[in-house]
Amino acid sequence: MKLIKGNIVYAPALGKLVTLERGALMLSDDGTVTDVLAVPPESCEAEVYDYGEALVMPSFADMHLHAPQYPMLGMGMDLPLMDWLNTYTFKTEARFADTDYARSVYRALAKDLITGGTTRVCMFSSLHTDATLILMEELERAGVTGCVGKVNMDRGSEALRETTEQSKSETLRWLDSCDGFRYIKPILTPRFTPSCTDELMAWLGKLAEERGLRVQSHLSENLDEMALVRRLCPDCGQYWETYAKHGLWKDHTVMAHCVHSDEREREALLKHNVAVAHCADSNINICSGIAPVRTLLREGVWVTLGSDIAGGAQLAMNNVITMSIRASKMRAVQTDGRDAFLGVDEAYYLGSTAGHRWFGADGGFARGEALHAIVLDDSALPEPVCTLTLRERFERSIYLMDKSTIKAVWSEGRKVVG
Amino acid sequence: MKLIKGNIVYAPALGKLVTLERGALMLSDDGTVTDVLAVPPESCEAEVYDYGEALVMPSFADMHLHAPQYPMLGMGMDLPLMDWLNTYTFKTEARFADTDYARSVYRALAKDLITGGTTRVCMFSSLHTDATLILMEELERAGVTGCVGKVNMDRGSEALRETTEQSKSETLRWLDSCDGFRYIKPILTPRFTPSCTDELMAWLGKLAEERGLRVQSHLSENLDEMALVRRLCPDCGQYWETYAKHGLWKDHTVMAHCVHSDEREREALLKHNVAVAHCADSNINICSGIAPVRTLLREGVWVTLGSDIAGGAQLAMNNVITMSIRASKMRAVQTDGRDAFLGVDEAYYLGSTAGHRWFGADGGFARGEALHAIVLDDSALPEPVCTLTLRERFERSIYLMDKSTIKAVWSEGRKVVG
Repeated sequence: MKLIKGNIVYAPALGKLVTLERGALMLSDDGTVTDVLAVPPESCEAEVYDYGEALVMPSFADMHLHAPQYPMLGMGMDLPLMDWLNTYTFKTEARFADTDYARSVYRALAKDLITGGTTRVCMFSSLHTDATLILMEELERAGVTGCVGKVNMDRGSEALRETTEQSKSETLRWLDSCDGFRYIKPILTPRFTPSCTDELMAWLGKLAEERGLRVQSHLSENLDEMALVRRLCPDCGQYWETYAKHGLWKDHTVMAHCVHSDEREREALLKHNVAVAHCADSNINICSGIAPVRTLLREGVWVTLGSDIAGGAQLAMNNVITMSIRASKMRAVQTDGRDAFLGVDEAYYLGSTAGHRWFGADGGFARGEALHAIVLDDSALPEPVCTLTLRERFERSIYLMDKSTIKAVWSEGRKVVG
Repeated sequence: MKLIKGNIVYAPALGKLVTLERGALMLSDDGTVTDVLAVPPESCEAEVYDYGEALVMPSFADMHLHAPQYPMLGMGMDLPLMDWLNTYTFKTEARFADTDYARSVYRALAKDLITGGTTRVCMFSSLHTDATLILMEELERAGVTGCVGKVNMDRGSEALRETTEQSKSETLRWLDSCDGFRYIKPILTPRFTPSCTDELMAWLGKLAEERGLRVQSHLSENLDEMALVRRLCPDCGQYWETYAKHGLWKDHTVMAHCVHSDEREREALLKHNVAVAHCADSNINICSGIAPVRTLLREGVWVTLGSDIAGGAQLAMNNVITMSIRASKMRAVQTDGRDAFLGVDEAYYLGSTAGHRWFGADGGFARGEALHAIVLDDSALPEPVCTLTLRERFERSIYLMDKSTIKAVWSEGRKVVG
């Protein structure tokens, strides 16, 4: 057994924050949570990890990001979407035909993720099978868990495209090579409707069903994109139907953005248990707008958060969380307060628990779940005026933490940092 | 003489960025820029600082921040403005009656500023004279230059207030103690109209004129505050006139926020050469709105940037710069593109050159000015796909830099970090 002592903080549900001062987590030998204790036992047989005054909190889940865009983080932010894609994105992704380059970038990315406290990801690779397998290897090596998708794209951009046949055969080759991974699983990843022919989409939908695979893509990010989808798919009334008609709109499908999803599209999200990956920083940087997160939550839609690098310029999920708060505040102003802004505990819930649930975990430090946690030492933050409550320390840490305050990271029951 | 070699980048005017690959700055012995060179001399008598491939750029000027709110950074962000003030701000500021506490906080703040590349500030202290002098000492010791104001507030908050007489006598005692400072100068600082009686405002206006002192305060931050000002000052048609009628609205007065300044107020800003300190992060966090920066710039108003800690939750000016870009993008969306968003070079201009000008410096690395510069080593940032232009490296650094990438800081001609 293992005993982790510290100040325990977790968000088991939206708007609920549990704080246990000098509490403890009891783990089995394989790192599964067996108990959450308000008071640690005086003595026990367990191997003890005493984190003292540090905060022990569920780690982050980044539910939408593009691994091959990591080298262009913070670049081209002044360009309109199509120029940004053509000047930077497609050229950058094309470079991942080079496996040595992929290895070097993905090793750095995996390290950046895990030392920043992100232990679960739902991630886009590029269209390259070999680079995708390298990405999965590097994530596993670093201790990151989750899903990675080789991207399918047989339409659109001249700079970066497969033939339909290539896309199919490479997808099968990739899937056949995934069995050896323990912590990283494949997810089907049609880039987005404008990038995929109907033939490819239909084939992917069939494959998803045959092999029980999950699906991720993009939805209703900006108005030009939506107009393009309407032109390409005149038979579909709404964007989501371009996925639905091919069997790709289903339980646990992850759709990034949903900035402009109207009532009917939001109903479809709810009805089919599709998860939204809200990417506030990216939506602001690319001038897409601000997603109606409060409305989605009110309606019961499943909302998670994504860094969406490199449309998003921040990989650190605490920054993604605070940016989602900021975006929600701008929306609160725009709607005269009708859409209340996200509280820190709510945004943290979206960036941790809501994502972990997608992987089958229950809320917070639930019994029977492998531990995913970060240990935060906030003692180097500015000296406060008075003794802070644990809730205040939590709030301040979400705004101010960086790698230097993350003392340890646990992923799938294993201590992988610290 | 001194010779600084590196990749020189500066923004001499709004929308203009000069990049000199492997260029150099020539300085006199006292750190005054005597030449900006596209090609460094083969050999010279000067003491050489060879920064190799690093970027050498003008440092940041933070034109609005509250030093005594540093310990509450990132706290209370879920509270409405008045609760935030009463729960955190006034209590926190009141603590600065304790000079030992002030010393400890201000030493940490000064270090945080200078190692983050902020070499000039226009700053609010609290109402405490002794703590204000300690703040000035600690800034000088760390190498930060600029203006600091003991705050005047004889109306409003029960938790934190002076009598009118105290405010006057303490202001005089403070000013009498400022002569010994070389790099930090006093600035008159009525907190804002709701905090100051007419008698105090009139006295401050007279003092400003008699002693040739500059003035800083707050203006049109949010709608409730503006309604309060209208009730308190029924004789003034607009908020700015509550300062103007007492002689506080004048050349180089700094007004923070101006989120809701209408055409007439903006005309008054322009006519009197009042500088706006735009505080995007704070305005978003407190749900004040988004200032019409593009409109202000189009009309010729002087716009600078402020971190406004702790309404702003970020002291690092590169983050303040990118947040002003994000805010401008939200405004661009709101106005259907009528208010074009700020480019990276434009926002950097506002956060460096536009502020430096307030202190009398000319644009960029102007000849005859004491050097204010940061040296950025971007080699630890994610490996890019291809060789980046110097402009791309600049852009990426503004988004991604942190203290670890700042290799050296020069302030008023002196190397103070690195």
